[in-house]
Amino acid sequence: MMSVDKRNGILRRTTSSKPKRTLRSYFIGRPLQTADAEHQTIGKAVGLAVFASDALSSTAYATQEILVILAAAGSLAMGYVFPISIAIVVLLAIVTISYEQTIHAYPGGGGAYIVARDNLGELPAQIAGASLLTDYILTVAVSVSSGVAQLVSAFPVLSDYRAIIAVGLVALVTIISLRGVRESGTVFAIPTYFFIVMMFRTVGVALVRYLTGSLGGVVDPPHLEMAETLQPITLFLILHAFSSGTTALTGVEAISNGITAFKEPRSRNAGVTLIAMALILGTLFLGISFLSSQIHAVPSEAETVISQLTRTVYDGRNVLYLATIGATTVILIMAANTAFADFPRLSALAAADGYLPRQLTYRGSRLVYSRGIGTLAVIASLLIFAFNASVTALIPLYAIGVFLSFTLSQGGMAHRWWKIGHLAPGQTKTERGSTLHADPKWRVKMFVNGFGAVCTAIVMMMFAITKFQDGAWLVLIIIPSLVFLFSRIHAHYRTVAHHLSLEHFDAPLRITRHRVIVPISSVHRGALAALRYARSLSEDVTAVHVAIDPGDGEKAQKKWETWGDGTRLVLLDSPYRLFLEPLLAYIEEIDAQRQPNEAITVVVPQFVPRYEIENALHMRTAGILREALLHRPGIVITDVPYQIE
Amino acid sequence: MMSVDKRNGILRRTTSSKPKRTLRSYFIGRPLQTADAEHQTIGKAVGLAVFASDALSSTAYATQEILVILAAAGSLAMGYVFPISIAIVVLLAIVTISYEQTIHAYPGGGGAYIVARDNLGELPAQIAGASLLTDYILTVAVSVSSGVAQLVSAFPVLSDYRAIIAVGLVALVTIISLRGVRESGTVFAIPTYFFIVMMFRTVGVALVRYLTGSLGGVVDPPHLEMAETLQPITLFLILHAFSSGTTALTGVEAISNGITAFKEPRSRNAGVTLIAMALILGTLFLGISFLSSQIHAVPSEAETVISQLTRTVYDGRNVLYLATIGATTVILIMAANTAFADFPRLSALAAADGYLPRQLTYRGSRLVYSRGIGTLAVIASLLIFAFNASVTALIPLYAIGVFLSFTLSQGGMAHRWWKIGHLAPGQTKTERGSTLHADPKWRVKMFVNGFGAVCTAIVMMMFAITKFQDGAWLVLIIIPSLVFLFSRIHAHYRTVAHHLSLEHFDAPLRITRHRVIVPISSVHRGALAALRYARSLSEDVTAVHVAIDPGDGEKAQKKWETWGDGTRLVLLDSPYRLFLEPLLAYIEEIDAQRQPNEAITVVVPQFVPRYEIENALHMRTAGILREALLHRPGIVITDVPYQIE
Repeated sequence: MMSVDKRNGILRRTTSSKPKRTLRSYFIGRPLQTADAEHQTIGKAVGLAVFASDALSSTAYATQEILVILAAAGSLAMGYVFPISIAIVVLLAIVTISYEQTIHAYPGGGGAYIVARDNLGELPAQIAGASLLTDYILTVAVSVSSGVAQLVSAFPVLSDYRAIIAVGLVALVTIISLRGVRESGTVFAIPTYFFIVMMFRTVGVALVRYLTGSLGGVVDPPHLEMAETLQPITLFLILHAFSSGTTALTGVEAISNGITAFKEPRSRNAGVTLIAMALILGTLFLGISFLSSQIHAVPSEAETVISQLTRTVYDGRNVLYLATIGATTVILIMAANTAFADFPRLSALAAADGYLPRQLTYRGSRLVYSRGIGTLAVIASLLIFAFNASVTALIPLYAIGVFLSFTLSQGGMAHRWWKIGHLAPGQTKTERGSTLHADPKWRVKMFVNGFGAVCTAIVMMMFAITKFQDGAWLVLIIIPSLVFLFSRIHAHYRTVAHHLSLEHFDAPLRITRHRVIVPISSVHRGALAALRYARSLSEDVTAVHVAIDPGDGEKAQKKWETWGDGTRLVLLDSPYRLFLEPLLAYIEEIDAQRQPNEAITVVVPQFVPRYEIENALHMRTAGILREALLHRPGIVITDVPYQIE
Repeated sequence: MMSVDKRNGILRRTTSSKPKRTLRSYFIGRPLQTADAEHQTIGKAVGLAVFASDALSSTAYATQEILVILAAAGSLAMGYVFPISIAIVVLLAIVTISYEQTIHAYPGGGGAYIVARDNLGELPAQIAGASLLTDYILTVAVSVSSGVAQLVSAFPVLSDYRAIIAVGLVALVTIISLRGVRESGTVFAIPTYFFIVMMFRTVGVALVRYLTGSLGGVVDPPHLEMAETLQPITLFLILHAFSSGTTALTGVEAISNGITAFKEPRSRNAGVTLIAMALILGTLFLGISFLSSQIHAVPSEAETVISQLTRTVYDGRNVLYLATIGATTVILIMAANTAFADFPRLSALAAADGYLPRQLTYRGSRLVYSRGIGTLAVIASLLIFAFNASVTALIPLYAIGVFLSFTLSQGGMAHRWWKIGHLAPGQTKTERGSTLHADPKWRVKMFVNGFGAVCTAIVMMMFAITKFQDGAWLVLIIIPSLVFLFSRIHAHYRTVAHHLSLEHFDAPLRITRHRVIVPISSVHRGALAALRYARSLSEDVTAVHVAIDPGDGEKAQKKWETWGDGTRLVLLDSPYRLFLEPLLAYIEEIDAQRQPNEAITVVVPQFVPRYEIENALHMRTAGILREALLHRPGIVITDVPYQIE
């Protein structure tokens, strides 16, 4: 007790209860108080490091995934990788500009869920939530799998242990997340900038060698698994490859979720960071795609395209090669870590709105949403096992969710501008908790966001169609199922809230009379303890014994004459050896005569053994009776525990 | 309510509660009343049919299991099967004579468990119990597996489905046992006598053909899997083969368990039946062993020796062949059915003595010990799956338990005669519930039982040594573990009985004052219902709210001012976001001041959703609190349920 504050008969004090030190606290650190929550802000340079890992890391696999699709039409088709990459970078530009507007409109944080909820309503918000949660899970699975693929490229001996290594890395990221290392800077800055430097150096050296004509093909490339008959180069194939490449855009939305982490002027800082990130991402992606086709890199599970490019540029698996691959692996794991921050935060937000179990809003001993972190870790690990940590197998599930949330977010913004267009100049209006300010440029801005929405919607449909049979169908089942689940959960919470609400509540009559029933299995100390308590509640006490064997009844009757203290005993013979049913029938009979000022209390002698396991040696009739009575309105159940120590 | 009987304020009535009609009752029949229990007695001819299936059915595999061992030393060694069988029949004679004496001494039923308990004490009784229970499980696994082996011999196409068919048969026997077909006669008589007739016919025809020189070898025998190097014929090998053959004796004890089922004079009738059974068993076993070696039958998983013999005698797989194999299969399944009667009965007996969970004494809707039946079915099925229904693989686990219980039973009888020898002529003495009558022939009888005990003890040790590495070691671990478990269970029940006993019980002071604590998570209808109940118990009511988020406290406080009806509210701020610990600390603080005439009641608002699954959406703090409080002496827990319907 640290402080006592007493007004109007209400006592308030702070407890000193602290979680116990356990093995757990050794791994995740000492417990933190609620007041310890940090509110540190960061500048643009650090902000880029913190939020960019997800987006930048996709350069590690996007080019390769385009090549995988094109390879089905032979080596010639693989030349299309560069034009396709240009189209993707154009899409990136559109999405970036569109999101830059969102950042200014939502300085408090404008993730797709919030934007959809504020501007489009409940169902779109639930769809955005389901898409994002699905995608965070896939971010973890894909990023970690790609990280392991880089490791395997450098050390092929690890190839058989892909899934194990990947799940081990998920466990590592889980522990880090449970510790709750805040997105606080240098820890993130070093590896991110190291990755950026190493990638620019690799791409730069490669371009110089290309221009000087000294860049050859990949030496000893991995074997390209070809189908027996080559596919023709069709529009479908090109769009299919384009869809795979759009995974490069995943993670672009991260900054719009985290605006509050930036120093003031935060929208401006966040916007500048977003544009810088998009420029770096676009440049690297184009560079890698161009060079990969020049060196005739081959998509393969055995060696990543990044690895092929790097060892071609540096002439072998030397220190520079290992540094580049190492940096790539680390940034991929950091991308997973970002999802481990976003998933629990979004699920807590959805849970607070009543779409997910409320337990997800509870912060654990380190002030992080531990249950969300655990949920993500388990599902991502299962996915990795199911797909044996293969990026190519996971990719068709990825990105639909991202583009669906892009579409909803941009669409929501467009609708917002349209509403703003209907305000008088200088007018302000608050709707669903967000404030709209009149803006003369609303038409342009509506067009920008609207165009973004249309583009991303088209890409999403293209993705769903071209990748349907590769696995996208699964996501098209999962997202609506999740939305349905959310709405059922929401309905449940609404029903409960309605039933518990104190609006129009008339306090019932005071209880002035108690009728007490004491079921006893035999006459012993436990039963007498219950009887003693029951008699202190009321004069109207009835003990009830269900005689399963005819002999039981006589024995109980005889003992009762000595120990019953004059209390009424009802013996129920049960010819079918049932215990629960006769007792419930008797209680119902009594309940049928209950008056509004009466309470019926069933006082149950509850046998409590020293160890939980010892319950297996007992009938646990008290527990069974309790479960049955809980569902009968108006009956109160009292446990008088009798401990055997 | 059918009858009401009222004396000394004790009301007695018979309830009409009947189990509901469910899918279950469709399979196992309508529920039976306790008074429906049958007490029918049977004559010798039917008694033989009822009790002999276990013993007689072992002729289906005993010869084959001897051959399996001998085969390791080549075909020549297989000639030893007949002399070994003669030795086993001598052992059978010793055991039979010994048991015949037991039957006369225990007309009320003298299984090894009872004889050991009455004459040797608790530990030997537990060992006998553990051995018998283990063996009943193996009887099911071995008999059903051998039954399936007969089927597979006739229809080799079923070979791949051995385990599935075997488990299906176990399920069938389980359902029959749950229906509770009483050991009542003709149902059992027909197949048993059919088996006896068919086997005698087969053996008889074979002998005639042998004597007339028209009995050839097995045509197209199954392939004999030989080790690369033949073992020499050593004493160890012979004893090993002898051990395998002793499985022929399993089931001999069945009659001594079931003496009460016989018509008067029951000991005499039971004794005569036992001798008849031993004669039939010995004759068939010797005949089969002799003939198998004459036709050069080969032990094989693909075709049983019985099948080889039968098709050789009848020149092919014709109707007579199928009838014989069919009869063998059926009697093997009936042997399993016998174990399904014995295991639950013995486990109920041991449970009534406090060595097994008391639930095993509870009779289900059909008056059978359903839980024992279920336990046996599950364990036997797991064994069958683990050993893929191979009789040869299961045999090393079998028979140790049988011989251990033989030894304890005969040893117990010998000790009993020794005690009788110390009585004066005509004297009677009651010890541990069994009555000893002076008997002038006690020396001879002591010698007979003692000799039986020594012989079976030697065989048991021989079995354990020769079959140790084939799997007998497992049983040598399981039986002591079971005995240890029994003694722990017994100790638990003794402790509980001691704590609950009313001897030296001084009734504590009456409760004249209640202190009531109402933990509330927030102020809603459920909490107010609990408050209403709490206020009817006492004037001393305190509501307690643990504020996990600082904002929570303020909200609760404000609502309480409106709805708290002047009741004291304590707000506990929990900086580490713990819920349970601050509450328990507060309750302990109050409890520390409790007077002997005071009761502390924690009234918990219990939220009850319509469907169990909806609990997943709630914190279930009521349940967690309840679990924690149950272990604190002197605190009563009252649930005021609030149903959401």
